[in-house]
Formats: sequence, C-alpha cells, structure tokens
Amino acid sequence: MEQAFHLQYAIDTFYFLVCGALVMWMAAGFSMLEAGLVRAKNTTEILTKNVALFAISCTMYLVCGYAIMYGGGIFLSGIENVDVASTLGDFAAREDGFEGGAIYSGASDFFFQVVFVATAMSIVSGAVAERMKLWAFLAFTVVMTGFIYPLEGSWTWGGADVFGAYNLGDLGFSDFAGSGIVHMAGAAAALAGVLLLGPRKGKYTKDGKINAIPGANLPLATLGTFILWMGWFGFNGGSVLKLGDIANANAVAMVFLNTNAAAAGGAIAALVLAKILFKKADLTMALNGALAGLVAITAEPSTPTALQATIFGAIGGVIVVLSIVALDKAKIDDPVGAISVHGVVGLFGLLIVPLTNSGASFFGQIIGALTIFVWVFVASLVVWGILKAVMGIRVSEEDEYEGLDTVDCGLEAYPDFTGSRK
Amino acid sequence: MEQAFHLQYAIDTFYFLVCGALVMWMAAGFSMLEAGLVRAKNTTEILTKNVALFAISCTMYLVCGYAIMYGGGIFLSGIENVDVASTLGDFAAREDGFEGGAIYSGASDFFFQVVFVATAMSIVSGAVAERMKLWAFLAFTVVMTGFIYPLEGSWTWGGADVFGAYNLGDLGFSDFAGSGIVHMAGAAAALAGVLLLGPRKGKYTKDGKINAIPGANLPLATLGTFILWMGWFGFNGGSVLKLGDIANANAVAMVFLNTNAAAAGGAIAALVLAKILFKKADLTMALNGALAGLVAITAEPSTPTALQATIFGAIGGVIVVLSIVALDKAKIDDPVGAISVHGVVGLFGLLIVPLTNSGASFFGQIIGALTIFVWVFVASLVVWGILKAVMGIRVSEEDEYEGLDTVDCGLEAYPDFTGSRK
Amino acid sequence: MEQAFHLQYAIDTFYFLVCGALVMWMAAGFSMLEAGLVRAKNTTEILTKNVALFAISCTMYLVCGYAIMYGGGIFLSGIENVDVASTLGDFAAREDGFEGGAIYSGASDFFFQVVFVATAMSIVSGAVAERMKLWAFLAFTVVMTGFIYPLEGSWTWGGADVFGAYNLGDLGFSDFAGSGIVHMAGAAAALAGVLLLGPRKGKYTKDGKINAIPGANLPLATLGTFILWMGWFGFNGGSVLKLGDIANANAVAMVFLNTNAAAAGGAIAALVLAKILFKKADLTMALNGALAGLVAITAEPSTPTALQATIFGAIGGVIVVLSIVALDKAKIDDPVGAISVHGVVGLFGLLIVPLTNSGASFFGQIIGALTIFVWVFVASLVVWGILKAVMGIRVSEEDEYEGLDTVDCGLEAYPDFTGSRK
Repeated sequence: MEQAFHLQYAIDTFYFLVCGALVMWMAAGFSMLEAGLVRAKNTTEILTKNVALFAISCTMYLVCGYAIMYGGGIFLSGIENVDVASTLGDFAAREDGFEGGAIYSGASDFFFQVVFVATAMSIVSGAVAERMKLWAFLAFTVVMTGFIYPLEGSWTWGGADVFGAYNLGDLGFSDFAGSGIVHMAGAAAALAGVLLLGPRKGKYTKDGKINAIPGANLPLATLGTFILWMGWFGFNGGSVLKLGDIANANAVAMVFLNTNAAAAGGAIAALVLAKILFKKADLTMALNGALAGLVAITAEPSTPTALQATIFGAIGGVIVVLSIVALDKAKIDDPVGAISVHGVVGLFGLLIVPLTNSGASFFGQIIGALTIFVWVFVASLVVWGILKAVMGIRVSEEDEYEGLDTVDCGLEAYPDFTGSRK
Repeated sequence: MEQAFHLQYAIDTFYFLVCGALVMWMAAGFSMLEAGLVRAKNTTEILTKNVALFAISCTMYLVCGYAIMYGGGIFLSGIENVDVASTLGDFAAREDGFEGGAIYSGASDFFFQVVFVATAMSIVSGAVAERMKLWAFLAFTVVMTGFIYPLEGSWTWGGADVFGAYNLGDLGFSDFAGSGIVHMAGAAAALAGVLLLGPRKGKYTKDGKINAIPGANLPLATLGTFILWMGWFGFNGGSVLKLGDIANANAVAMVFLNTNAAAAGGAIAALVLAKILFKKADLTMALNGALAGLVAITAEPSTPTALQATIFGAIGGVIVVLSIVALDKAKIDDPVGAISVHGVVGLFGLLIVPLTNSGASFFGQIIGALTIFVWVFVASLVVWGILKAVMGIRVSEEDEYEGLDTVDCGLEAYPDFTGSRK
Repeated sequence: MEQAFHLQYAIDTFYFLVCGALVMWMAAGFSMLEAGLVRAKNTTEILTKNVALFAISCTMYLVCGYAIMYGGGIFLSGIENVDVASTLGDFAAREDGFEGGAIYSGASDFFFQVVFVATAMSIVSGAVAERMKLWAFLAFTVVMTGFIYPLEGSWTWGGADVFGAYNLGDLGFSDFAGSGIVHMAGAAAALAGVLLLGPRKGKYTKDGKINAIPGANLPLATLGTFILWMGWFGFNGGSVLKLGDIANANAVAMVFLNTNAAAAGGAIAALVLAKILFKKADLTMALNGALAGLVAITAEPSTPTALQATIFGAIGGVIVVLSIVALDKAKIDDPVGAISVHGVVGLFGLLIVPLTNSGASFFGQIIGALTIFVWVFVASLVVWGILKAVMGIRVSEEDEYEGLDTVDCGLEAYPDFTGSRK
C-alpha cells in the first residue's frame, strides 16, 4: 500500500512537471509569434520584452504572487515537503477507489502555476507592440504578475471571496484551465494599454483607410503557433491536476484529444472564412484561428466529445476573424490580434462551459467573466495611467519611425538583411 | 492489486499522451523543414499548407479515418471509457507476470494515432511544393487522411484482410512504427502527385542541365530536422504501445536509443558521402541523411543493437544521397527530397526488418511493401487525376514565376527582406 | 510487491527517457543560438557543425565513450537487460522505505548520458565560430567526445580515481548535473581552440578598438535560448537519476523549480546591468544572462531554496556580462560568449555548491574544478595543436572574408535575402 502511494505521488508529480515544461515552452511560442508578426525594425525589442516578461513573471510570482493566489507562504518555504505519515492516513482512506484529492510535490504545483502567469502577460506584449516603451512595459509586468493576476486568481482557482463580497464558485462559475482567468485577463490588461497608447502611426489614415502592416517573418509566426499548440497540451492537460488513477487518466487523455481537435477546427474555419471574405488563404488568420480554437476549449476541455470540441474550436475560429475585422474598424490597433484571440474568444469559451458541464451555470459564467474583466481592466488602466504620467508609455514619433530596436536595444534583429549593415 | 492496475493504466496513458505530443510536434518540424527549403516567394503558401493539412488530418481521422482503420466508432463515442470491473479480471489473470495487452485510455490511443496521419500527409506537401495549387492540395488531403491512409492502415496495424483477399500479418509482414505504413505511403502519394504535376519551371533545362534551386532559409530547415529528430522519439517510442512493466520499459528505452543512433549514423554517412561526391559539406544532405536514418530504423527499432541501428541509419544516409541524385536525373522534381527520404529509404527500412526480427519474413515484407505502394500510389493517382480534370492542380506559369505567396495567400513571408515592401 | 517493482522500473525509465529527449533538444537550442549570433555568411557552416557534432557525439559515446566513463561494455552489449529475479531481492530489502538505488533500463541511462556529451561539444562550436575549418572541428569532436570528456567524466560521475592518484568524491567534490563536468569542460576545450585560432578579422583593430560584429538573426538566438531553457529541465531534472518515490519526486520537482528560477534571475540581472553599463537593453546580454543563470544552478539545483536559486542565477547573470567585457578586452574572441557563460559561470556554479550542500567542500570543489579544467584544457590544446600542424585549423583570410558557407558548404543560408542570388 505504501509503495503504491509512493508511485502515485511520483507519477502525479512528474505529470505536473512535464505539463509545466510544456507551458513554459509557450513563452517561446509567444515570442516567435510576436516576432514574426511585427516589422523587422521592432523585432529585437519584442523579443527582449518576451524574455524579460517571462523572467519577471517567474520572480514576482515567487516573491508574492503565489502567496496571494493560494495563501501559501512566500518563497515556497516548506511547501515542498509532504508529511508522509499524515498523508498516508488520507491515502488509506481512499484505498478502494484510489481517487481523491491530488497528492504531489508542492514544488511541482508551483512550477506548473508559475508558467501560467507568464502566459497571461505574454498576451499583453503582442497587443502593445511596435510603440510601447520597453521599461514602461516591464514596470507594468511587475504589477500585473505580482498583484493584478494573482488577486484575480485567488477569487477563482484560489477559492477566495471577491473582495469579501461574493464567491464565484458558489455562483456556479467554472473555468477549467483559464479561458477567462488567464486569457481574457491578459486581453483585458492589453486592451487597457492599447486604449491609452493609441494605434501605430500610419495604421489608420484620416480618410478612414485601414492599412495592413504585414509581419516581417511568417515562418516564425507559424512556428510560434505550433509551439503554442503543443504547449497547450500541458496548459489544459495539466489542469486536471491529477493523473494517477483511471478516472483522472481518462480525463487527461480526453483533454489532450479535445485540445487538439479544437485547434484543428479553429484553423480550418478561420482559413475558409478568410478565403470567403478576403478571397485569399490568409495564413495569419489560420494561425489565429488555431489559437482561437485553443482558447475556446480551455474553459472546459474535459466534458465535450471530440466532435463538440472541433465545433467549439471552429466557432472560435469564425469569431476571431470577425473580431479582428471589427476591432480594426473601431481603430483599436492590435498588431498580433491578441485581444480578439484571447479576449473575445476567451469570453466565448467561458460562455459555452454550461453546454457540456452541468456544474457550471450561465449566470455564474457571466458574473465570473464580468468580475475578471472589470477588475483586470480597471486595475490595468490605473497602472498604465500612472506609468503614462510618470515615465510615459509611448515612444516618440521619430523613434517609432526609426524602429524600437536601435532606439531601445541598440541592436538590429536582422542586420545582414535589412540593408543597414555598413 | 487494484491500485497497481490504476497506476499502470495511468502510466501507460500518460506515456501515450507524451509520445503523441512529440509526434504532433513533428508537424512543426515538417513545416520548418519545407519552409526552409523552398524559395522565399513560396514560403507563406507552404506554411499554410502545413497548418491546414494538420488540421484537416485531425478532423478527417476523427470523422471517419480511425473508424475505418481500427473499426472503432465514429467520433470516439464511448471509446474513452474503460470497464474497470471486466478489465480487472483480465488484469488479475496476468498478475504474476504483469505483462500482457496494453490497457489504457482509448482517447490516448486516438490522440497518438491521429498525429501519424498528419505525418503521412506532411510528406506529400514537401514533394509537390512551389507549383501545386493550394486548394487542390487540401482537397487531396481530405481523401488521403480520411480514406486512402486509413484503409491501408486497417490492413496492417488494423489487422484486417487486404480487400478480403489476404492478411499481411499472416504472411509475416512487420512494420513496427511505420517505415512503410506511414513514410513510404506518404511518399507514394507524393510520387503520384509529382508525376502528374511535372517539375518546377527552370529546374531541368532542355540541354539536360539540372539547376539547383536553393532553399531560402537553411536555419529553418535545420530546426525542422531537429524537431523531427526529437518528435521521432515519440513516433517510434510510442509504437511499443505499452510502457508499464519491465519488458516493455526496456523495449521503449531501446527504441529511443536506437532511433537516436540511426539518425546519427545517417547524418554522418550522408555528410561524408556528399563531401566525397560533391566536394562540399552539403548541409541539406546531412539533414536528409539524419531523416533517412530515422526512416530506416522505424520499421524495427526495438530488436537491433545500438551499433546495428547506427549502421542501418548510415546505409539509409547513403541511399538517400544516391536516390536524390537519381531522381533528379530522372527529372522527378522533389524540392525537399521527400520521396527519397520517406519512400526509397522507407522501403529499405521494411526490407531490413527480418535481419533482426525473426517474426518477420522477407516475403512478407515484400508483399506488404507492394500492397502499400500499389494501393496508395494508384488511389492517389486517381484522386490527383480527378482533381486535375476538375479544378487543375498546377498554378499558371505566371503565378509560378510570381510566387505562390502573393497569388494564393496575399501575404509575403518576408516582406521586409525581399525588397518588395513599398 | 512485484507489480510495484514493475511500475517503479517503468516510471524511472520513462522519466529518464523524457529528460533525455529534452537534453537532445538542447542540440537544436545551441544550433539556433549560434546560427543567430553569427553573420549570415557563416550560418550554413555553423549549422553543419552543430548537426555533425551531435551525430558524432552520439556515435563516439556509443563506440567507446560510455565504456570509458562508466566501465560498461562497448556497444551496450547486454546492458539493457535487467535480471528481474536478483533485483527483486534488492527491491524487497528496501520495501518499507521504497527508496534506494535507482533501478531502470540501462538503455535509458545510456540515452540520457549520451546527450550530455553533445552538450559539452556544442559549447565549443560557438566559441570558434566564423573562422575555424569545418573538418578540423569535426576531427576534434571525435577526440573530445570519445576520449577527453569521457575520461574526465569517469573521474567525477564515474567515481574512478584521477589517473589513479586521488578521488574527487573522497575530497568532497560535488557537481550535481555538470556545471563543471559538462559546461566548464566544454568551455576549457573552447578556450584552448580560441587561443590557437586567434580572433576574427576586424574584431580588434590595431588602435585598440573592439568592433561589435552583430549576429544576423536575433529571433533565432532567442529561440535557441528558450530551447536551452526548456531542455535544461531535463538536463538538471534527470540528474536526480530517480523519480519513483516521494523523496526523489520532491527532489526532481525542486530541481525543475530552481532551474527555472535561476534562469529568470540571470536574465533580469544581465538585462539591468547591461542597461546601466551600456545604456541599452541588450537582448544578447539578457539571453546570455538566462543561460548563465542555468549554468550557475547546474552544480547544485536540489538544495537551494527557490529564492536562493534566483539570487545565484542573478549573480551568474552579472558575472557573464562582466566576463564578456573582460574577455573582449583581453582580445579573446568568442562570438557567442560561450566561454563566459559556460566556463566562468560554470566555475562560479561549482564554488557555490558548499553554500547549500553540506556534502560538498570548498576544497573539493576547487580541486575538482582544477582537475577538470587542466585536463580538458591541456588535452584539447594538444589535439588542436596537432590538428593545426597536420591540416590547419583556420580558414584562409580570403575565405573568412567570403564567408564559410560558400567555401565549406557550397550553400548560402539565406540566398534570397543577402542579395547574392542571381
């Protein structure tokens, strides 16, 4: 019996670590996606932002974020230790069914949770690309990953009451892996920044024309999407939180399968819709469609059938194309489509949970979505506003024309190709 | 006892999921490899093909492919559920030895199998690159992944009789992870397409000269090869189908080791042969050599010693260089060498199985190879032929000159580098 | 009981294979990092070196390296077989605590160890980039991976006496995952090569000026860093060597967590220090900072707290920036900063082990570091020297100006972008 407990503990811990490594890999995915979709002259800067935001996220979540979100001690003091004697008692109690609460290394739990913070923040960097000041962005990152996201996380996955007023879980709110808690939250912070920042120069002209500003490196954007697709297996699959018995193993397997099916549905739907609307097989729309499928299924990847997951993903793919067009008409400039992919489709993902999960209610989903959005949007608006007043958040017009790479980083991303090497 | 069953079930399921995620990652590998080996003007289009073919493969296999191949229900109805009570009886019967048929989540089996379909199809996209119409290719993808491959798979891994006439397994055919079933099958479909399509403009001139058309981005091609190399651990390693006891764990470990050894042998052999033949250290040959080593070992990675695996891989590396030269002389234009890597070396892989696996016979391997090749080649030829008659499969000469990216996708892959940004 | 042993064996084997696959992935990381940091004209050649060195490492370690290092048989004869009957006796003896020596597939151990060899060798290729002859480098690779590294490894992880004279383990030397054994060793071989090779033309001018030679593709360098970051979870996490009980599972989880924390600390520290020193957010310094953090924690990732790991990583990030500046002043030309990252910070990593691991002594660490450095540096100097005398190690001045790609490989890396396609 004790041996089985040892093995179950080891399996569940390893499962968490593998899934966490896959989510960490998503940081590379966002970096490549964003680097591929900006112009060559802003590429070094977006890469710097992505590397730095991941590093800051990990450090801030360690210093205070995890403690705020789950009430654990700061600096992981002690959480890595499991009291075998007492947990064995618990284990014995559930010996027959072999199911129950997950028991695994606390350090593996932290490792899995910390990479989610970075995902939320990565969403922001894409939306504010090509005109946001580097250090203002990094200052925002500190607040977002250390406080804004963890507080919101404490109300949802952490189980705490929202400002002591109401409890989302009691209202029937359910967000399996974070369509709202991670993705829509990131998009809300991004939207606040974009509204204060304004569009890139030349994106919208006075005569009402919308100019396409094509990305410099579509293979990178495609690579980034595949990385995210792969990493999402860890993102959603790890969110079952336990693997080591038949019921949970089945759940993890269905989550992998549905995550893949939804991405496939999203890519196809967006590609076909773009062909119909624009008469072209728009690769960037197919990529955003795949990502939209992934976001759409994230709030509940375990209860749909695989066909339902494909359809949900496809609807996500349709929504993201329409949303990107609509945001452009509203002159909300989002170079990579992050607000549409993660925000609009994140909301859609929350709203379809009750269709397949009877434990969730539409009312709860709406209250939860409103709570997350209002908190993150307003708090972000305040922080962006303070940063704007104190240090400025937008580069000068000349710097924007010159490109952020030479201005902020002193390094071109592609010096041999862009004709500027002397 | 029941706890051990739970744990074994969880381990075997997780092993399948991890291997499946690695095989899914191969989709990124093929994308990068092909994007690196075509010209800049055709890059967006090949990326679009790769993203779309993966999405279509996953959807078609879900809708009908898996049911055709393994006789399971469509849409995975019910297959994710394991009847614990009845399997426990089976488990008890093999309690002493702890070995026997794999018992794991049906959804994890589907997830692992589905990514193989996409691998077969990815092989095609490279061979027909730079002149095939996008939507004709996608139409072929629907038929290939939904019917042609699954039917062939049903005769081999599915165990069904070939058109009710004979059974390949009974004849001593063995293809562990798919040198023939996946790789040669993909190459057969590609060859049919290439023959109907003809070579790229300018590849072979009237005076008999063969012009090299270098790929635009060799770091991408190298990255793609490394991705495939890594993903192949899942491709071959997962094909043991079970991990959770000593004998199977040893088999999985030998498969990982031999897969790596064969790739290493192939890369070295191809690099050295290219240096001898062409007086240059041809990177693309080294990359194709590594891939050839991987294809060569795929039909039987569990029974060779590590040194045998290295040698088999090295022979694969020699074959691929000679085959690429020979195909060029025959004016069969394959921009990425896919027919040589996956077809010619895939056949070689099948033929060497009996050297180390006494369960396979040369006669069975030859009948199996013929069955797969004839079926996939003829069926593909018919489908490509119909597509050619109905919608055309080749772009116009002007479009080929202009590049498929602007014509089909309306997006350049590298607008800032190729001098066309205004 | 026997079932539990089967499961533990399977879990520990699978854990090794997953970690090994992650370390193999680091080969792609080094390739992309180095390809991104050299000029376009030397990119194909550095990619060729990286593919070939990985293949050669795997083959040489199979042929003789593993046998030298661990005293096992050549060609893995028999090591994949476990005698279940006799190990079950051992297993029974430790039944209560479930802890003890790892028992897993010998093939999985080889697979995990073999990818470490390639890591050590990858460090060299970056430092000698842009002027080293390809085939001289490959000849060195044969000796380094077949003899120099394995002998040094036999004295440390292999437990053998150093030339029969003294035993590093007895002196209190401890290097968990190889800050010294792998990283500093690679840097020592690189330094020997660089000293014999001299700096690139134009790097240091006669008037004492140091010219920056920017890398051609920073997104690739960033991707490479993220790949290395991810692969390091396998590098350090797998070095616990066992997963399948609570104590070891906790250790693996702490190692993952600390590895990530140290990389984050290193990236932040290097970025901030570069901003202070150079007034620019230097992306390449942030990348090298992350890698420095990883190297710093590699000698002991299991005993520090997560905050200590962050701080150790940050100090590594500071050291690497200062070291890169200092090496440039000493006119030691290292295009990618490999000697600073892996050598200087590798030494730092060794020296901080006793701070958190009472089993290590400062004296032992210093003796160990000296032993590794002197052996690898002197042996490498001899080999490089012989190669220099026999075949030459440096390309001609004209070839260096022209670029190694056309000279050595006959293929440009980016023919469509660098203006040379006719």
